[in-house]
Amino acid sequence: MISSTVLFYGTYVLCLCLGLLCVVFVSYWNIEWRGGFAWDASFLQFNWHPVLMVTGLVVLYGNAAILYRIPFTWSQRKQHWKLVHAALLLSSLILSILGLCAVFDFHTGYHIPNLYSLHSWVGICTVVLFTAQWLLGLVGFLSPCSPLGFRKLLKPVHAWMGMAIFILSLASCLSGINEKLLLALNGNSNSTAAYSSHPAEALFANFLGVLIVAFGLVVLGILSNQRWNRLEPGEESSRSLLPEDN
Amino acid sequence: MISSTVLFYGTYVLCLCLGLLCVVFVSYWNIEWRGGFAWDASFLQFNWHPVLMVTGLVVLYGNAAILYRIPFTWSQRKQHWKLVHAALLLSSLILSILGLCAVFDFHTGYHIPNLYSLHSWVGICTVVLFTAQWLLGLVGFLSPCSPLGFRKLLKPVHAWMGMAIFILSLASCLSGINEKLLLALNGNSNSTAAYSSHPAEALFANFLGVLIVAFGLVVLGILSNQRWNRLEPGEESSRSLLPEDN
Repeated sequence: MISSTVLFYGTYVLCLCLGLLCVVFVSYWNIEWRGGFAWDASFLQFNWHPVLMVTGLVVLYGNAAILYRIPFTWSQRKQHWKLVHAALLLSSLILSILGLCAVFDFHTGYHIPNLYSLHSWVGICTVVLFTAQWLLGLVGFLSPCSPLGFRKLLKPVHAWMGMAIFILSLASCLSGINEKLLLALNGNSNSTAAYSSHPAEALFANFLGVLIVAFGLVVLGILSNQRWNRLEPGEESSRSLLPEDN
Repeated sequence: MISSTVLFYGTYVLCLCLGLLCVVFVSYWNIEWRGGFAWDASFLQFNWHPVLMVTGLVVLYGNAAILYRIPFTWSQRKQHWKLVHAALLLSSLILSILGLCAVFDFHTGYHIPNLYSLHSWVGICTVVLFTAQWLLGLVGFLSPCSPLGFRKLLKPVHAWMGMAIFILSLASCLSGINEKLLLALNGNSNSTAAYSSHPAEALFANFLGVLIVAFGLVVLGILSNQRWNRLEPGEESSRSLLPEDN
């Protein structure tokens, strides 16, 4: 049991470091190669889009999803941690919606149609599902009038939908980075900077994609390990009967 | 228990239908709008790439991953189903490698560098991990000299890696469809066919992406439901003690 806890905290620290690196890399990419940030419907407003989506929809969301797995929280009232979980996810949702506003405003400013690419279809579905999931979670798990039977019914659906939204957010971010590099580098008349000529920006942003994949797999690894589930009252005795981790 | 089995078979039929639709859609896209197929290092050879990757790395792989969850197989010797699992995954791996050959040959023919985009980085990592996973699975679970202790140690890693590879293959396919549409439609001088003008091909291929997402989420839903795990000898009594599905 001790070794499982030590292994958890090792994995958790790795997860925090990878999440921090994702935020640093996506910010540096947009400052160093894309001209920085503004909120004026220009290219500089677009640059908020990747930063807000990676920070909100991937890093904050992933950290909120694994909150109940931290053994430190198990000895405390779950109600408090439900509020932290909901608050982290609300911050994640607000950043994601701001990220969508950034790209929609930019499109309006440059007369570019919205929601034409597969990236945008997957991304908008992710945020719509996330909004529905957050509202249903609020009603189901934080409202005092929610009946116990409904909570028990909702819990596996909530956990499954949460994982599905996270996987969709990973796919959205990876396809979005790829799309941005194709449009920005190949649309540039200076052929030495084309995506296929491996310029520094492309290598850096591709590496950001690798960091997002690594962060996502660590979060999903934590979520899928049953031995790291929060112990609910009466579950202690059943845990030793679980089959080996598969 | 009966309702859980009925629910499984309903989900399984949905999974088979979605998988079939993915193969039909990716083939039709490349026949109707991309000119069909050849193996001559031309654009027509490239067209095998999406068809082979979606069919092999997503549809066949997903079906191989959920094979042990089919209740029909539980009363039979696991060794037989291990061989079917390995054979399905080998077919999936062969199709994926052929899919890589298709794109590498096309790149060579047109002097396009290999492995420059994030899509290609994620895709090649997926196939490399898949190859390692298949070989390790062969040595660990099908070789008669593999010790029981090693199998027990390998099993959770194998299951987790299997899921990670599937998620990476979904992300690779989505980013790949997005990349192909950006390069093919925006590279076309006829501006009415640009990706952002919502041509029929773009809507059709985006919808293929939606089908791949739906198929992936159904497969991952089946894998994550502990009540649909194959019952191993001695596990019958412990299943009723499992916490509710989360």
